[in-house]
Amino acid sequence: MKTVKTIEEVRRQVKEWKAQGLTVGLVPTMGYLHEGHASLIDASHRDNDRTVVSDFVNPMQFGPTEDLDSYPRDMERDAALVEAHGGDLIFAPEPEEMYHDGFSSFVDMTVLTEELCGLSRPVHFRGVCTVVSKLFNIVQPDRAYFGKKDAQQLAVIRHMVDDLNMDIELVGCPIVREADGLAKSSRNTYLSPEERKAALVLSKAIFRGMELVRGGEKDSAAVTGAMKALIEAEPLARIDYVKLVDAATMQQIPTIDRPALCAIAVYIGKTRLIDNFFTEDV
Amino acid sequence: MKTVKTIEEVRRQVKEWKAQGLTVGLVPTMGYLHEGHASLIDASHRDNDRTVVSDFVNPMQFGPTEDLDSYPRDMERDAALVEAHGGDLIFAPEPEEMYHDGFSSFVDMTVLTEELCGLSRPVHFRGVCTVVSKLFNIVQPDRAYFGKKDAQQLAVIRHMVDDLNMDIELVGCPIVREADGLAKSSRNTYLSPEERKAALVLSKAIFRGMELVRGGEKDSAAVTGAMKALIEAEPLARIDYVKLVDAATMQQIPTIDRPALCAIAVYIGKTRLIDNFFTEDV
Repeated sequence: MKTVKTIEEVRRQVKEWKAQGLTVGLVPTMGYLHEGHASLIDASHRDNDRTVVSDFVNPMQFGPTEDLDSYPRDMERDAALVEAHGGDLIFAPEPEEMYHDGFSSFVDMTVLTEELCGLSRPVHFRGVCTVVSKLFNIVQPDRAYFGKKDAQQLAVIRHMVDDLNMDIELVGCPIVREADGLAKSSRNTYLSPEERKAALVLSKAIFRGMELVRGGEKDSAAVTGAMKALIEAEPLARIDYVKLVDAATMQQIPTIDRPALCAIAVYIGKTRLIDNFFTEDV
Repeated sequence: MKTVKTIEEVRRQVKEWKAQGLTVGLVPTMGYLHEGHASLIDASHRDNDRTVVSDFVNPMQFGPTEDLDSYPRDMERDAALVEAHGGDLIFAPEPEEMYHDGFSSFVDMTVLTEELCGLSRPVHFRGVCTVVSKLFNIVQPDRAYFGKKDAQQLAVIRHMVDDLNMDIELVGCPIVREADGLAKSSRNTYLSPEERKAALVLSKAIFRGMELVRGGEKDSAAVTGAMKALIEAEPLARIDYVKLVDAATMQQIPTIDRPALCAIAVYIGKTRLIDNFFTEDV
C-alpha cells in the first residue's frame, strides 16, 4: 500500500495495473476514515483486483460559511485503515494539484440537486459532481463505491454517470452505524459528549419512520410528522429538513406510491448531521 | 466503414478495437461534411489505427432562435466522405439516444465562455462541453480532432479537458478555405449567390488583419479597426464582433503582447459566419 500526491503518479500506477489486465475499484473519500469508509474499501477489495482510495477534502463542495477549515484530518490513521482493509493506493492530492490556477470548468445538474441538501448547501453538488468527474477521469476505475448515508449524493452521481455516459459501475453500500444507532460520520467528531447523546435523535427518528413504513403507512406527512415530533423534543436539535422524496428524482411526494427516500438533516449544536432510509430497504 | 446509431454499438466496436491494442481517434462533427472535416478525418487516420466520426446535430448547443431546424443534413454524402478519407465508423445517434427523458446534467465553464461567441450565443458552450464530454465518454478515444475555425470552441474544449483531467490528446487542425478565401463551413450553404460574394469580406478582413500583425502592428484597436472598416463597407454584412483576445483566456487585450487570437463573427443576411487567425500563425 502506498500513498501518492500527484495525478501523474496515480495514472502511471493504474495504467500499469490495467496493462496487466487487472480491474480497479475507486473509493472517493474526504479522509478521516471510519467503519463506513472501511465497508466501501471492503466491497471494492471484494469486487476488484486493485483498490484506489482518494483522500481529499474538496474545497469546491464547501460553502463559504461551512466547515472546510475545521474538517478533521488524520492521514496516518487513514493509511493504516486503508491498508488493513485491502486498499492498494491512496491518492491524497493537495488542493493545488486538483485545482490549478485558472481552473474554471464544472459539472452540475438541475432537478436532483435542487432538493434536500441542495437547498441548504447551494454550491455543494456542483463541487461533488466536478470532483467526482475529475477522480473518475484520473483513475478510470471499473467500479466506484459510495455510501448510502449520502443518499442524495449517490443519486446525483448515478444520474451524472448515466447522463454523461461515464463507463463506470456505481456501487452503493449500506449505512454503517455506531452500536447505539448513530450513523458513522467524520463529522461526529465535532460533537461534545452532551451533543453526542442528543445526536441519537437522528437514528431514533429514522427507525421510527422505518417502523411506520413497515407497518404500511403510505402518507408521507404522517411519517415525516412523527419523525419531526421526535426530533423537536430534543432541545439541542434543530431540523434542517425531514422529507420523503421520489428515490429517483429527489422530488417530494405526498404519498409513498413508488420507491422513496426518507432523508433528514439536523443540526446538533453547530454540527449538521444527515441520516436516511430507502422505503425499499425497510 | 459502417454507421451505427446507438451508444451500445459504438462502445462494443471501440472495446473490440482496444482489446486488439488499436488506437482510436475521434472526429466530432455536426455532419454535412466538407473539406474542413475531411482534413480532420485525414489527420486522425494518419495518427490512429481507427477513426470514429460522430455525426450529430446537437440540439443542446443551439439557442431557441438559432438554426437547429434548418441546419443542413446529408447522411449519405457524409458516409461517402468519411469512407473516402479512411474513417472506420460513423456514430449518428438520434437526439433521444443522446438525451433521454430526465436528462439534466451539464458541463460548463466560466471565463473562456463569456467572451466572443459566448456573448451572442449564451447557451452554446454549455451544449458543446456537455456533448463533447458525452462523446469522449462513449468513444474513449486516444485523440480527438477539432478545427481551428471554431477557435473559441477549441480553446474551451482544451480548457475542459485540462480542468477535468480527461485523458485525451486534443489536436487542432488549420482552417480550410475555398479557392477564393471563404472559410469552409456547413452554414455556407445558406448563402444566396449574392451573399456568397459578400461573405468574402470575412476572409478579406482576416487577411488584412494578418498583414498588419505580420507588419509589426501591436495595437489591437488598430488591427480590429482596419478589419471593421473593411467589413462595414459591405452592405450585406453586419458585424457581431471583431476582437483581439488572449489565446489562452479569450479575454480582450489592448496590446498584442502575448499569443493572441483575432476572431470575427459577421452576419451575411441572416447567416452568421465566423473566421479567425492566431497571431502565432501569421
